[in-house]
Amino acid sequence: MSYPNSLKILIESFKKFPGIGEKTAERLAFSVLDLDVKTIDQFSTGLQDAKNKIKRCKICNHITEEDICGICLDNSRNREILCIVEEPKSVIIFEKIGSYKGLYHVLDGLISPIDGKNPEDINIESLVKRINEENFKEIIIALRPSVEGETTALYITKILSGTNIPISKIAYGIPMGADMEYIDSMTLEMAFQGRTKIS
Amino acid sequence: MSYPNSLKILIESFKKFPGIGEKTAERLAFSVLDLDVKTIDQFSTGLQDAKNKIKRCKICNHITEEDICGICLDNSRNREILCIVEEPKSVIIFEKIGSYKGLYHVLDGLISPIDGKNPEDINIESLVKRINEENFKEIIIALRPSVEGETTALYITKILSGTNIPISKIAYGIPMGADMEYIDSMTLEMAFQGRTKIS
Repeated sequence: MSYPNSLKILIESFKKFPGIGEKTAERLAFSVLDLDVKTIDQFSTGLQDAKNKIKRCKICNHITEEDICGICLDNSRNREILCIVEEPKSVIIFEKIGSYKGLYHVLDGLISPIDGKNPEDINIESLVKRINEENFKEIIIALRPSVEGETTALYITKILSGTNIPISKIAYGIPMGADMEYIDSMTLEMAFQGRTKIS
Repeated sequence: MSYPNSLKILIESFKKFPGIGEKTAERLAFSVLDLDVKTIDQFSTGLQDAKNKIKRCKICNHITEEDICGICLDNSRNREILCIVEEPKSVIIFEKIGSYKGLYHVLDGLISPIDGKNPEDINIESLVKRINEENFKEIIIALRPSVEGETTALYITKILSGTNIPISKIAYGIPMGADMEYIDSMTLEMAFQGRTKIS
């Protein structure tokens, strides 16, 4: 014996999270002992609620506690632009910036044949249906710059080619403030390919 | 709106932990959505139990779910050696190594006048009482090598000087495998002071 049982369970729970190893799990579990009862209650309710209440928006597949998410319901948004993203997290990141005012479609994954992820495993069918039924004038693909992201973007561009809606892709290149010395060759190549005319 | 409410609560909860900022809290909260119901139940029960069931051992002040901890109750341990440590975590670390077979006394802090921590704020009174009542033949001080650790060790040595029980301090020095180049000067000084004869 060295850990009381409840602490042991707590350490095991923390270890289930990505990026948390034995040492960090121990440190976090010990900090629980210093939290006040209200925080603990809130935390354990939050855990249950997040799991039980959060579902996917029936239109765009973003996370929500209702049937339709707040973005899809928001009538002030531009319903003619659709931004295609990999996961709910992307929506949240873009919403934080706040400059994009159109709608979203969450794929929940990228095409990756090597991992057994085919087009039918991500939300492409609902995307096509949505584009056919709604009245989009522009589609922006905002996927991770990677082989999977490129494959998925290519696939979407192909199946939507008949719709004649302009499709664009967010710019991949050197991030602001980066030191050229530390930029990988693939990013540099993308930066050259994606160069824009300035005069 | 961008986060569902339950996710927002979860992020706030994670942010209460030391060393967890906004980004990590978000990442952890999102991972909750991928955990199975059983893990979530276990986690939230663990949180409540750790807070409600864990108390301090009436003898040594180590964390336990009973009145007396398993170490104090274990009759196979050497009841003539007492190891004085700062916090329950130290007990767990030493127990993992497994070579120390005596008893412990958890001070729950170190003397630090600058932070308003005086001898009466840590468990020194119960330590003195215990030493007077029990039959210890050796006392080992195993505190963090720091000004506070040294002050506390000095104070304990002083108030126990009348008991004539041999008091020792664990060795401070260069850790195994360390590169001398990266060792701070205080550690080096301690290593010189604590040199042991080899022939």
